[in-house]
Amino acid sequence: MSAIQKQVEAASEEYSSSFTKGDLALPPAKKYLVLTCMDARIDPARAFGIELGDAHVIRNAGAIAEDALRSIVISEQLLGTTEVILVKHTGCGMLTFKNKDAYDVVEQNLGGEATAELISRNIDFLPFPDLDQAVKDDVKFLQNSKLVPDRVTISGWVYEVETGKTRRVV
Amino acid sequence: MSAIQKQVEAASEEYSSSFTKGDLALPPAKKYLVLTCMDARIDPARAFGIELGDAHVIRNAGAIAEDALRSIVISEQLLGTTEVILVKHTGCGMLTFKNKDAYDVVEQNLGGEATAELISRNIDFLPFPDLDQAVKDDVKFLQNSKLVPDRVTISGWVYEVETGKTRRVV
Repeated sequence: MSAIQKQVEAASEEYSSSFTKGDLALPPAKKYLVLTCMDARIDPARAFGIELGDAHVIRNAGAIAEDALRSIVISEQLLGTTEVILVKHTGCGMLTFKNKDAYDVVEQNLGGEATAELISRNIDFLPFPDLDQAVKDDVKFLQNSKLVPDRVTISGWVYEVETGKTRRVV
Repeated sequence: MSAIQKQVEAASEEYSSSFTKGDLALPPAKKYLVLTCMDARIDPARAFGIELGDAHVIRNAGAIAEDALRSIVISEQLLGTTEVILVKHTGCGMLTFKNKDAYDVVEQNLGGEATAELISRNIDFLPFPDLDQAVKDDVKFLQNSKLVPDRVTISGWVYEVETGKTRRVV
C-alpha cells in the first residue's frame, strides 16, 4: 500500500469515528452547485462556506463550464439544483499554456499512441489567457446553452489563492 | 444578490480573515489527485484527509474517469502528479437511471433544442448499474489509457455516505 493510500485509510478511520451526518438526502439541500478548479490550493467547503449536504461540487482543470456540462445537466435536471456558483482562481495553471503546448508534452512524454488517443477522444485542454474574461465567457456559455434553463441563477467569481478571498466578477 | 451569493461572500470574509496559506506552490505538494463524485454528501478534504496544497481534486457526476481524462492528463503531464485515488460512493444518483432516462427528462423539461444540443455535443450521461464494478471498470479504464503511463499508481475506493467510511475496492 502506498503512503497516500495509508493516509486515506487513517483519515477515514478518524472521520468516520465522529461522523453524524449519515441521514442526508441525495439532492442538495440548498439546491445549488459550485463549479471550481481542481487546484490543490482550493478547499471549496471552507473557502465558499458549503455545509455537508447543501451543494453539488464539480471540479475540473480550470473550472471549465463546457467540460462540466454533463454533470451540470444531471445536477439541474435530475437533482433539482437552480443556482450555479462558478469560481476560477488566481495563479491557475490554465493561464500558463496553450492547447498545442499540452499536445507537444504528451507526444514527447508518452509518444504517438497517446497523441492518437487525445485526437480520437477529441480532447481540447481548454486553457485560457485571461482570468476575468474566462469567468465571463463561461457564465455566458451556460446562459446561452439550451441545457441550462433561464430560471437557473448563474454568477461568476474569482478565488485569490494568495489571500483566501473570493470576489464576484459577474 | 441571491441568498447563496450572500452566503459565499460571508464565508469568504471569514475564511480569508484567518488565512495563512498564501504561499503554496501550484503543483500539488504530495503529487496525487483525488477523483470523486460531485455528490453534496462528500467533503473530500475531511473524509479523505487532504491538506490544502497537497492534491488535485477532480469531481464530476459519478466520479467518471473518462469524463475526467482532460483534467487527469493536465494533472499528470503538466503538474507532476503520480498517483490517482478514485472514490465512488454508496447512494450515488448515477445508480438510479439510464442514459435514455436522462435524455427523456431533458426532452420533456427543456424541449427539442436542448436534446439537439446533447446530441451535437455527444453527451452520454455515463450512469452505471453496479457500484463496485464501476470502480473496477474505471480503474481499468485509466490503466488501459495510453494517456496514463504505467508509473502512475491507481487505486479505487467506495465512500459510504451512511457511515463516513472509505473502503478500498481495488
